[in-house]
Amino acid sequence: MADVQPKVTTGPISGSRKVHRSTDSGMAVPFRRIEQSDGSHLDVYDTSGPYTDARTGIDVHRGLPALRPERAEHRTQRESALRGEITPEAEFIAVREGVPAELVREEVAAGRAVIPANREHPEAEPMIIGKRFLTKVNANIGNSAVTSSVEEEVDKMVWAARWGADTVMDLSTGSRIHETRERVLRNSPVPVGTVPIYQALEAVGGDPARLSWEVYRDTVIEQCEQGVDYMTVHAGVLLRYVPLTAERVTGIVSRGGAIMAAWCLAHHRESFLHEHFAELCDILRGYDVTFSLGDGLRPGSIADANDRAQFAELETLGELTAIARDRGTQVMIEGPGHVPLHLIEENVRREEELCAEAPFYTLGPLTTDIAPGYDHITSAVGAAAIARAGTAMLCYVTPKEHLGLPNREDVKTGVISYKIAAHAADLAKGHPLAQQRDDALSTARFEFRWNDQFDLALDPDTARSFHDETLPAEPAKTAHFCSMCGPKFCSMRITGDIRRYAQEHGLTSTDAIEAGMREKSAEFTAGGGRINLPLAE
Amino acid sequence: MADVQPKVTTGPISGSRKVHRSTDSGMAVPFRRIEQSDGSHLDVYDTSGPYTDARTGIDVHRGLPALRPERAEHRTQRESALRGEITPEAEFIAVREGVPAELVREEVAAGRAVIPANREHPEAEPMIIGKRFLTKVNANIGNSAVTSSVEEEVDKMVWAARWGADTVMDLSTGSRIHETRERVLRNSPVPVGTVPIYQALEAVGGDPARLSWEVYRDTVIEQCEQGVDYMTVHAGVLLRYVPLTAERVTGIVSRGGAIMAAWCLAHHRESFLHEHFAELCDILRGYDVTFSLGDGLRPGSIADANDRAQFAELETLGELTAIARDRGTQVMIEGPGHVPLHLIEENVRREEELCAEAPFYTLGPLTTDIAPGYDHITSAVGAAAIARAGTAMLCYVTPKEHLGLPNREDVKTGVISYKIAAHAADLAKGHPLAQQRDDALSTARFEFRWNDQFDLALDPDTARSFHDETLPAEPAKTAHFCSMCGPKFCSMRITGDIRRYAQEHGLTSTDAIEAGMREKSAEFTAGGGRINLPLAE
Repeated sequence: MADVQPKVTTGPISGSRKVHRSTDSGMAVPFRRIEQSDGSHLDVYDTSGPYTDARTGIDVHRGLPALRPERAEHRTQRESALRGEITPEAEFIAVREGVPAELVREEVAAGRAVIPANREHPEAEPMIIGKRFLTKVNANIGNSAVTSSVEEEVDKMVWAARWGADTVMDLSTGSRIHETRERVLRNSPVPVGTVPIYQALEAVGGDPARLSWEVYRDTVIEQCEQGVDYMTVHAGVLLRYVPLTAERVTGIVSRGGAIMAAWCLAHHRESFLHEHFAELCDILRGYDVTFSLGDGLRPGSIADANDRAQFAELETLGELTAIARDRGTQVMIEGPGHVPLHLIEENVRREEELCAEAPFYTLGPLTTDIAPGYDHITSAVGAAAIARAGTAMLCYVTPKEHLGLPNREDVKTGVISYKIAAHAADLAKGHPLAQQRDDALSTARFEFRWNDQFDLALDPDTARSFHDETLPAEPAKTAHFCSMCGPKFCSMRITGDIRRYAQEHGLTSTDAIEAGMREKSAEFTAGGGRINLPLAE
Repeated sequence: MADVQPKVTTGPISGSRKVHRSTDSGMAVPFRRIEQSDGSHLDVYDTSGPYTDARTGIDVHRGLPALRPERAEHRTQRESALRGEITPEAEFIAVREGVPAELVREEVAAGRAVIPANREHPEAEPMIIGKRFLTKVNANIGNSAVTSSVEEEVDKMVWAARWGADTVMDLSTGSRIHETRERVLRNSPVPVGTVPIYQALEAVGGDPARLSWEVYRDTVIEQCEQGVDYMTVHAGVLLRYVPLTAERVTGIVSRGGAIMAAWCLAHHRESFLHEHFAELCDILRGYDVTFSLGDGLRPGSIADANDRAQFAELETLGELTAIARDRGTQVMIEGPGHVPLHLIEENVRREEELCAEAPFYTLGPLTTDIAPGYDHITSAVGAAAIARAGTAMLCYVTPKEHLGLPNREDVKTGVISYKIAAHAADLAKGHPLAQQRDDALSTARFEFRWNDQFDLALDPDTARSFHDETLPAEPAKTAHFCSMCGPKFCSMRITGDIRRYAQEHGLTSTDAIEAGMREKSAEFTAGGGRINLPLAE
């Protein structure tokens, strides 16, 4: 197997090419340049790594080249920011996001943003998670005991990053967990997150009661050494919270949360994650691994949303946030889950209040339970709403949620759905760069530059293929209509005719129209009541 | 062709059967009964008509039987409601929605709800559109000059209603417009809407300048006679508003709006729809056809949202609403379009204020322009938000929006996406019946009743097929895991174990836990630190 080059998708996304802008310290910041047929172009944020660079050879066995310089001093991004230093990563991020480097520093220093960048993962391109920056999207990959292989998971990671995933989480729980993660890390251009308890549980034969701090700690250190950038830790699941889930419709739906609750109950003790939290902070800080404090008691159904169990855990996460920050470790907070629309905003407000504005990282939320098979949509609705309210990163949900392990196509659908939610929120939050792309695409649409419209889309391939289903011929790419309305009923074509007519007749303002109405009324009647407007084909 | 029975989908939706409840006056109100393996059942709102009734024969040539009784008096639903009468339709609706008939009457009398029920369309099952009722979904069907046939459109109508479309609009602009509409009407269990200007334009050879009040009026009468239940009329597009669209990124994107703007400009006169509006009211009232006052100047891009052109037209629609109500005609108001999340609520507030709370009927809105191919999702995000704010009916958007005419599969995807948005809004608005289905599904999920979970889903077929992709064998339908997490990592299975353990050990409250912690701590240490929790397989 080691001799076969695993298959990953390479080559530029349709209609674009990779360009770089240099930072002052010489790092090359990637952008995807979308060329337009009118000679203009739009550079967009690019998560896809060297895989979409036509000039770069890819060798999955060797992995990506190290991008980030080795740093002499052992300070975390947070510690550097607090000292007033702008790190090379912060500088990279500033160029990438189109913001001042000082804003990056300030937000990281305040703990309102994190830069998940393990010093042992130099292949990754620096990125930031915080509400004053572009809303980020995470894609979960990883096998289960039932299905998938190492090769498939590496392929999914590359594929997810290609379509815009800002980070990936390797949630493997099946066989070859270490090897899968190693291959993912060495080839990932985006930060990689994990949930170490999964591997720890495998190490003790799958029995939660046999877990211990020592097994867990060793697993964490192994993963830190490999280069994992952020780790989900369910240290907020306390023994006394378990009974709060007893009356729930769906109990505990977080895998890590359920495992820790089982451990606490079996041992009748407070969780070892909670007891050894300070020690865990120090381990993570040593590599600059970011905490993602897990919501082990998140609601798994509409009925359980915003209940006591959920908010009790959130309070504990707030206490842990303070401890981690004191020790110089970066922290973000995970959020739900299943939440109806009217209860979403409260989640953000409470999280900001209890966790001192640590970046919020939410799974969806799903806004109804009744649509298995379409939970990328039920949750994109909630994701857009919660991101608008201040969530910094959205964990995607695929169409297979609740039903099975996502395949490659599900991963793409999940990522695109979440790029939509994130972008909708960025527009609503008024991110200065967001609307450029909408305007460019709508202008192309109005001008019937079909290929430009496709290339500016989040998924050019699908847009083009949907159009071509009914009008595949090349002339249709400049035609002033599509099959939806046909030539005579195309409103944009008619608008174009109207504008030309108005221009030629000087009818470009309301005043001119009103003056014209008086004047032309007579003329019209005299002329027999017909004016030739060249509107039909 | 008349001898071949057109193909439409018949038979019950998986796991359910048609039941009826009778109204006091003897009308049979349909429900879809979803049977559960534990002996319980859930009856849900059913738009699918006799097609899903296993006991009913379908003959598309003959059409559906008349459901509604012929009425002697020629009053509209609105006029009856104002006189304090509860019509048979209102009674039917009350049973269907699970609300008092008096609420139906009150809302119709106040103009906050409409019952689109042309007396010439007795095949349709009565339904109501208003913000105090379940949020409704419309599916557009209809051919274009480029593609589709009469048979395909009838099939799409039946298919759309099967998956939950509350109304359909036949927007045909191609050939055989009259015949397509006739077949759709005679076979439609849901109200049918149209945009008469499309047929009128065909009648004058496709040149907007050749349109006239007389041609339009005759078209409207023809469609009223056929049984169309509501009609989009772009009477708010005034000549003086046309220059307000001159600086827009996407001009006028409503087909009817563009046609009327072209007419106004060509003739340099105010629109014949506006001039003859009172006469139009009287024609519609004669059949109890409901106005859907069209938003001919809706924004077609994020850049154009909530601009002067849009809101100027809305003011005019408010004036027309008052005229229509005075004349006893029912009215709803159409809304945008493309609107970013933060500008959505303003649309509802202004509509309610300017149009005296006439039901709002919005297309999406799309919350970004950058995802052609996924506009069912960009717009489901906006649709859920605008419905939560008070929109009564949502016009679906399919994945083909902006790209081509939707096919059968696109119609289903569009309908399901919009049922999600509507249901998410109903949950947020606290509709008393909404959460029942979420709770039933989540309970089935938690209890690993996989078939029940699928059957309760909006789309049982897709949920089942996604699950079966990786675990097709029958035993997997009761297994305590799926391929997403595999057996050891299923949080719901572990929760079940935790609950049994807690029950057996009397650890079902926080107090018991805390007492137990003190007690067991000693016991635990004495026993060598291992308690057997039967968590692993």
